[in-house]
Amino acid sequence: MPISPDQATEIAELRANTQPTLRATVPGMEAHLYTAHEVLDHGFIRVIDYMGDDSAICQAARVSYGRGTKSVQNDEGLIRYLMRHWHSTPFEMCEIKLHVKLPVFVARQWIRHRTANVNEYSARYSILDREFYIPAPEDLAAQSVVNNQGRGEALSGEEADRVLRYLKDDSTRAYDHYEEMISQDDQQGLARELARMNLPANIYTQWYWKVDLHNLFHFLRLRADSHAQYEIRVYADAICEVVKDWVPAAYGAFEDYRLGGAQLSGKALDCVRRMLAGEKVTQETSGMSKGEWREFEHLF
Amino acid sequence: MPISPDQATEIAELRANTQPTLRATVPGMEAHLYTAHEVLDHGFIRVIDYMGDDSAICQAARVSYGRGTKSVQNDEGLIRYLMRHWHSTPFEMCEIKLHVKLPVFVARQWIRHRTANVNEYSARYSILDREFYIPAPEDLAAQSVVNNQGRGEALSGEEADRVLRYLKDDSTRAYDHYEEMISQDDQQGLARELARMNLPANIYTQWYWKVDLHNLFHFLRLRADSHAQYEIRVYADAICEVVKDWVPAAYGAFEDYRLGGAQLSGKALDCVRRMLAGEKVTQETSGMSKGEWREFEHLF
Amino acid sequence: MPISPDQATEIAELRANTQPTLRATVPGMEAHLYTAHEVLDHGFIRVIDYMGDDSAICQAARVSYGRGTKSVQNDEGLIRYLMRHWHSTPFEMCEIKLHVKLPVFVARQWIRHRTANVNEYSARYSILDREFYIPAPEDLAAQSVVNNQGRGEALSGEEADRVLRYLKDDSTRAYDHYEEMISQDDQQGLARELARMNLPANIYTQWYWKVDLHNLFHFLRLRADSHAQYEIRVYADAICEVVKDWVPAAYGAFEDYRLGGAQLSGKALDCVRRMLAGEKVTQETSGMSKGEWREFEHLF
Amino acid sequence: MPISPDQATEIAELRANTQPTLRATVPGMEAHLYTAHEVLDHGFIRVIDYMGDDSAICQAARVSYGRGTKSVQNDEGLIRYLMRHWHSTPFEMCEIKLHVKLPVFVARQWIRHRTANVNEYSARYSILDREFYIPAPEDLAAQSVVNNQGRGEALSGEEADRVLRYLKDDSTRAYDHYEEMISQDDQQGLARELARMNLPANIYTQWYWKVDLHNLFHFLRLRADSHAQYEIRVYADAICEVVKDWVPAAYGAFEDYRLGGAQLSGKALDCVRRMLAGEKVTQETSGMSKGEWREFEHLF
Repeated sequence: MPISPDQATEIAELRANTQPTLRATVPGMEAHLYTAHEVLDHGFIRVIDYMGDDSAICQAARVSYGRGTKSVQNDEGLIRYLMRHWHSTPFEMCEIKLHVKLPVFVARQWIRHRTANVNEYSARYSILDREFYIPAPEDLAAQSVVNNQGRGEALSGEEADRVLRYLKDDSTRAYDHYEEMISQDDQQGLARELARMNLPANIYTQWYWKVDLHNLFHFLRLRADSHAQYEIRVYADAICEVVKDWVPAAYGAFEDYRLGGAQLSGKALDCVRRMLAGEKVTQETSGMSKGEWREFEHLF
Repeated sequence: MPISPDQATEIAELRANTQPTLRATVPGMEAHLYTAHEVLDHGFIRVIDYMGDDSAICQAARVSYGRGTKSVQNDEGLIRYLMRHWHSTPFEMCEIKLHVKLPVFVARQWIRHRTANVNEYSARYSILDREFYIPAPEDLAAQSVVNNQGRGEALSGEEADRVLRYLKDDSTRAYDHYEEMISQDDQQGLARELARMNLPANIYTQWYWKVDLHNLFHFLRLRADSHAQYEIRVYADAICEVVKDWVPAAYGAFEDYRLGGAQLSGKALDCVRRMLAGEKVTQETSGMSKGEWREFEHLF
Repeated sequence: MPISPDQATEIAELRANTQPTLRATVPGMEAHLYTAHEVLDHGFIRVIDYMGDDSAICQAARVSYGRGTKSVQNDEGLIRYLMRHWHSTPFEMCEIKLHVKLPVFVARQWIRHRTANVNEYSARYSILDREFYIPAPEDLAAQSVVNNQGRGEALSGEEADRVLRYLKDDSTRAYDHYEEMISQDDQQGLARELARMNLPANIYTQWYWKVDLHNLFHFLRLRADSHAQYEIRVYADAICEVVKDWVPAAYGAFEDYRLGGAQLSGKALDCVRRMLAGEKVTQETSGMSKGEWREFEHLF
Repeated sequence: MPISPDQATEIAELRANTQPTLRATVPGMEAHLYTAHEVLDHGFIRVIDYMGDDSAICQAARVSYGRGTKSVQNDEGLIRYLMRHWHSTPFEMCEIKLHVKLPVFVARQWIRHRTANVNEYSARYSILDREFYIPAPEDLAAQSVVNNQGRGEALSGEEADRVLRYLKDDSTRAYDHYEEMISQDDQQGLARELARMNLPANIYTQWYWKVDLHNLFHFLRLRADSHAQYEIRVYADAICEVVKDWVPAAYGAFEDYRLGGAQLSGKALDCVRRMLAGEKVTQETSGMSKGEWREFEHLF
């Protein structure tokens, strides 16, 4: 259970306190605010704050004095135009702040997206909780045999059992020793900043993460992608659900032009042209490498 | 007059539309929202949106589930601690969006602050307005004789008159020609993206500018400083007034530790120590260059 | 003539001074170093320094102890793979530093690329030179009639003459007045930081600009594109020629996957699939807007 | 031993290959290139490349055509002026690329410095080595009793022994299980991207890290500071030694104005003024909190 009763109470208090505002407000996001959306076995994402909406994108693109909205349809057309032509700055005018609880190995991938603001729970200063990610049996994937970076079918039988046993036992033992090392009963107690080094990468951490919509879309394009590691993809998927409610027009354009789209190389464009003209193109005549051709064939 | 009647109407409409929200809300900022605060002869700053408040800084620093507030006094102590020890990330958790109208030569300085989001009015796409910054007579400063980058007393008499005449006449003529060049009456009309090159740097442009509080403080420290050019300093000063209402505790810490503080070098610290011990220190015995010593003397 | 005899002498001195180094070195870049490549009527780009080469990209991608090179062919394959799959960080491991002289209105577009380091010639501190961009007659483009942001055919006859006369006369007068205003003969002299505001946007400025290869490619994709304004495109084109000599494999991949490639939306991919299956697709049945469909048709 | 014989051979090959260059070259850095400077028990920093030198800072500040050097003394004065007045952009014109091997918990602190380029060894793709940081006995610090974030004296006796035993045993066991889980002998083998989650934070990782001098100084100011965790401070200290050889004038200014300097608040400046005027100031009359006063007293 990722949220304790005390935390649930704090969240309920926040959700009970409505204030009037003149700012752009999105009812769908008000419904999300503060609530924990569960991800993995102990993780979550929570929307803490947001700035802007679909029409704030247009308002900025037009540098307008009022709301910038001519009509909803008009706005959607402009948003699609901006997305199609890689105009990134109007999307930067929306901002979201999330509270995320996630395993450390996921956090290490996530933090590589530098254009964001982060405050992480400090294990120098505080004591980490005893919470570890243990994959569900169906997510215990084998190493891919065709792709060094991928994963294959789920392990089964004794191999799966052993993996789960190792992950659980080693986490438990590491945390027991962590606690013993920092304990000050009849001893000095090791500095927290040192003791944490005994903890494995499946321990949960948490942070506040704030990002603008353009950079969030960039994150989602890479992390909601089928090539992303499953354990970060589920976070990206959960965020997609939120963004859909926040800026439906921008999310629609993102879905069409980025998530559901594809970048074609000059060679690939040329092949499509030849194929449309009736030519039978093969990898040999395509000018592409085998890897590129496989991806190209997969696309069409 | 920086705001036209139509624009005033749009602003009034925005200010008439209150929505309920669960987000952190600051009454002082609600009072500022959308209203134009005039700067220079045709410029302004307008608050378009904001995210967070003083306790959002603490909430992020503590990575808390609730509001993060123990008490107002407690929060202020934490904020001062964070500012004093250069913890920048909690301040990044607040964000502000401004609409700014400003002369191009000011915009060119401003844009050097890279960690911000900007949408500028496009002179490729649209036609600029006939609005130019003409300094007030008391701001027609002479070149400093002691500092290449500074300015001295105001010009006076015929010299001042001539400067004002040049600025006004050249602006007027440049804009007349701009209009003639893009005109399509009986002619093709020069592309806007080319015609704009005839316009001088005192023409007004405008943009949406969005920045987090940490980077805003950095901007304000450099631009609300007495060494900043007057024409950008007045914008920084106007923004300071807004920030004071937005995050009073953070602004107070900023004022004490940054605006009103000073960085002392190792040499300067050493001199202070010697002076406190009763020694009479001179530039020659200080180890400082003349420039450093002058600044040091000015400080104490 | 963008380079004065004194400057030419300084450049020649730099080019006469060879040092031994253990760093990655590219003969083609050594040939470029310091030399001014002329752009527009008074502008240039000059390579001041560079870091890394094609194999530095692979070395970083492999986090290797040695040069990271298995073979040139192997490296090229890896580079193409990295580009195709949007792995940006290995390309960030190469860096280039340019000295650029360019009109102010071009500089204003250029500076919007934030992930770069810039030192611009200071008109607060120094006096600008009397050099203005005056377009060649064939570049005096009319405003596009189909696209607000584009340009059409070149102006001709009297209209062209008048535009050139305005641009020349207004520049000359503005600069004369600039000089008179800052002059201290029998007067105080207006502060340089103020006098500069009288200068139009076709005056030349200059800066040192340093950027990593990933962000340079991003710049080039947008600015070497046919939709970019001609006056910045010629700079991008000149930089492309340099990059080709610096990192030929990376540039080749960039040319194929970015410059010569295209992003297809989900709708566009679907249309291609239908067309390949023999269906006759029209704008009406495509699901695309007219603008999207026009771009789609133009592509195939 | 952080470097294997094979790696030593690769490094020796790199150091045997001298090329002529026209670029700014620093003999002291050539001596460092590629060589591993050992840090902690298995870590190191290696200089892979560098761009610029002290005079490149001046050259950029002056936007000059030649080397920008008037004289070494002149350059040093300019560099000190730039540092004193927080002119950051000229320092951004120098760049360094390091190969760093470091424990994961150090890497997690390090990566928070966002304005840098990083390529980390991929544990999704590759298998990590069996190398763990085990503190030297004298670095087994106890938790500070006065400061939540600090550390006190070293543990001793049985407590120290137990901590070392836990760290060693748990690392060994975790790595044994890691190897067993990914093994494909008679089994499928768990995906590497999953298996790595069993490894504790004292395992070593490595990366290429590239940063400009301004941001490097910011990193060093925070991480070579006495409040930084010892395990990252030793890396910062090692980098300081390199930077001293690279840009001696800039490093000297940094040492005086940043490392050895201090930021005084408005209140602190006021107290110094009063004390210099002969007043006896106490915490009560200082206007400072107890924490601030303690730091102030410590300074003078």
